Amino acid sequence: MRVVVIGAGGAGITAAIEAKRNNGDAEVIIVDKRKRIGFAPCALPYVLAGDIKSFDDIIEFPKNFIEEQGIKLLLEKTVIGINRSDKKVILDDNQELNYDSLILAVGSHSFIPPIKGVEGAELFTLKTIEDAEKLKARIDELKTKENPKAVVIGAGFIGLEMAFALAKNNINVSVIEVAPYILPVMLDEDFAKIVKEKIESDKLRIFCSEKVNSIEKNLVITDKSKYEFDLLVLATGVRANSDIAKNAGLEVNKGIVVNEFMQTSDKNIYACGDCIEINNIVLNKKNPSQLATTALRTGKIAGYNAVSNEKKSLKGVLNTAVTKIMGLTIASTGLTEFSATKNNIEFVKATISSKTREDYATKKNELIAKLIINKEKRIIGSQIIGDDEVVPMIDLLALAIKSGLSADELVMMEHAYSPLTSPVRSQISILAELCLKKLGVKKK
Amino acid sequence: MRVVVIGAGGAGITAAIEAKRNNGDAEVIIVDKRKRIGFAPCALPYVLAGDIKSFDDIIEFPKNFIEEQGIKLLLEKTVIGINRSDKKVILDDNQELNYDSLILAVGSHSFIPPIKGVEGAELFTLKTIEDAEKLKARIDELKTKENPKAVVIGAGFIGLEMAFALAKNNINVSVIEVAPYILPVMLDEDFAKIVKEKIESDKLRIFCSEKVNSIEKNLVITDKSKYEFDLLVLATGVRANSDIAKNAGLEVNKGIVVNEFMQTSDKNIYACGDCIEINNIVLNKKNPSQLATTALRTGKIAGYNAVSNEKKSLKGVLNTAVTKIMGLTIASTGLTEFSATKNNIEFVKATISSKTREDYATKKNELIAKLIINKEKRIIGSQIIGDDEVVPMIDLLALAIKSGLSADELVMMEHAYSPLTSPVRSQISILAELCLKKLGVKKK
Repeated sequence: MRVVVIGAGGAGITAAIEAKRNNGDAEVIIVDKRKRIGFAPCALPYVLAGDIKSFDDIIEFPKNFIEEQGIKLLLEKTVIGINRSDKKVILDDNQELNYDSLILAVGSHSFIPPIKGVEGAELFTLKTIEDAEKLKARIDELKTKENPKAVVIGAGFIGLEMAFALAKNNINVSVIEVAPYILPVMLDEDFAKIVKEKIESDKLRIFCSEKVNSIEKNLVITDKSKYEFDLLVLATGVRANSDIAKNAGLEVNKGIVVNEFMQTSDKNIYACGDCIEINNIVLNKKNPSQLATTALRTGKIAGYNAVSNEKKSLKGVLNTAVTKIMGLTIASTGLTEFSATKNNIEFVKATISSKTREDYATKKNELIAKLIINKEKRIIGSQIIGDDEVVPMIDLLALAIKSGLSADELVMMEHAYSPLTSPVRSQISILAELCLKKLGVKKK
Repeated sequence: MRVVVIGAGGAGITAAIEAKRNNGDAEVIIVDKRKRIGFAPCALPYVLAGDIKSFDDIIEFPKNFIEEQGIKLLLEKTVIGINRSDKKVILDDNQELNYDSLILAVGSHSFIPPIKGVEGAELFTLKTIEDAEKLKARIDELKTKENPKAVVIGAGFIGLEMAFALAKNNINVSVIEVAPYILPVMLDEDFAKIVKEKIESDKLRIFCSEKVNSIEKNLVITDKSKYEFDLLVLATGVRANSDIAKNAGLEVNKGIVVNEFMQTSDKNIYACGDCIEINNIVLNKKNPSQLATTALRTGKIAGYNAVSNEKKSLKGVLNTAVTKIMGLTIASTGLTEFSATKNNIEFVKATISSKTREDYATKKNELIAKLIINKEKRIIGSQIIGDDEVVPMIDLLALAIKSGLSADELVMMEHAYSPLTSPVRSQISILAELCLKKLGVKKK
């Protein structure tokens, strides 16, 4: 059998590897219009910041590694159409590729909002290595300039990571966010304010609740002020690439529609990664989830199912995410209070600010955490700000949400304690108890 | 109503606080023969090591804090008997205390093995602040001695933490362990070897598979060699204090027998902490679990149930534990391969050695982890060696074991990834997949 994968990003490559691993006899081909593939897009801001030395260091899937798995790479070829009745994809050089299973891993593109003057402006986005190289060249140019200025539009995590990278390059950065607070998808206002306070500096200023009205030459004009720039970065989100699916007559909404097996409305065509819509486990609503970890997991499912009769499934995602800015690790999973409210979900929440060790331990980090539970006591969301412990803590909470655990189970969770490593009681357990107390009060 | 708690360790104080919180009208009294209470025993080795400045810093529950909760403290009073028919405890000053609920939180004592010469030897154990102060005085004496030598018998975590503390005080330490490897309760031989290699130094040598035959003056004589000492520490485990329960006619085995509500064989008498036997969730067998975290959780249950009609329960423990030695964090939960084998549980395991970040991140720690699953794919145990991430990772696995999760669910677990904080795929997910592959091969 032959599996054709369109797109050599994390989702596509993972799908191809999984297909080949589960059916060594299958011919697996990846087609991509790009020449340079297999890099970790999330790492781009950190290369610009100098935290990672070079673009060569962020190649997660080198071409020879992919080929060693027995996968064929067709690069610099654009798919111009899918002939579903004949099960063929048509390339821009008129080559036709038959498939038994087709996997769409066509990714996403930077969203450019319809701001007046945006078409003529010299602006930068950050999606590909080429984007990052262009940005790097511009940053290098600015090194000779006195007091260079940058404006970043959007204070999501890409926006903030970029702002941090520019500030590290000695550029004065103004970040403009239309929402009332930064990281509006990951955090609620209370936590966003804590982060903002910690990451702002003379070099990096953030302006929230400000709408960009127009871009004129080297000026960003908002509803409140004007910002001069030598460098303008747009970090206003990404959108699913779904034209190819739409043109082939597949069901498409905000992304390509798939079932829990990553099958599109055509059962021989799978889709995965940034280009799909996927179920949110807590909300039971579908939306794109444009995270590397979603790409890998949906890619794995698509690749496995493309070559197997017995199908694996993924019920959905929680959009568990983390970023590190100015030495601060910020993570979240599930719903924020804002998203719960918006979706008419009743909840209670608790917040603690504590140390990651008992008071007597000499090495201590600050940890600020929030837990949100619904009125049936189920965990529905969490936000944590701290240090290295944050990632597995949020992973634990994601597992708790996914497993439908009640807060009672977290109160009595088992926890590893030793004076120099951890507090005697896990902050998660304390938060669960605080939430239950509030719920008790609320019920009375 | 009146609740009498015998024992002012972590379990007893937690039980008293929980009782008072859930029934403000209850009179809650703690009786303890000691004068100095409320300290964190796990922190003692770290005070001796100098990682924690003073014994004053490790008081977790100061007396005034306990009294502010409305709890009465009767210190320096020994309970000499329990009159169950009249529901009274009798103190050594002939005072009698009526109770409605009685909570036994009488702790454990250092086990002194029947080694020839042990009675006459000047030896140190580490259980109370007084023990630690005596040890500190001896350590200070040795500072004037040239090339002082210590022998520690037992390479469990207390033994190793003590050895590390002595070595930090510039004393040459020999640790003697009868088992074939260190930390035999927490780790299997493979992981124990890795830890041994990392923590041994010129100052700290460890000898396994060596049985102490006798102690003669300043000499420990084993079946293989002789070790001179200026200071001898016994770290050969603790045993439940259960005489008081036995004398009152309560059911006692290796510890006081309790049900899932922490009730002893007398329904008005509860017990918690080091003095009880508690169910191991994976084995479904009862044993003492002498950990601070078990003390707190069983204390919470006992205290709540002592004043409430509706009872809370704790199904058991996994003995999740962590220690930090020479900057290395070592944790485990559930069964080791050794304990699984001993209990005739079929299993497969996988081990990985990886970084806690992707290769391109500049700050990376080593992480070595093992996952053990049974043939029904359920997680049954894990061991992890690494850095700050270890504690919440092991907590996550403890939660997975307790929730009866299958390895399939860990393969697809949601994970927070960002280049500087974590690998793109959680090591836990990779381990679960490796285990399932081995299980598949084993089944064929």
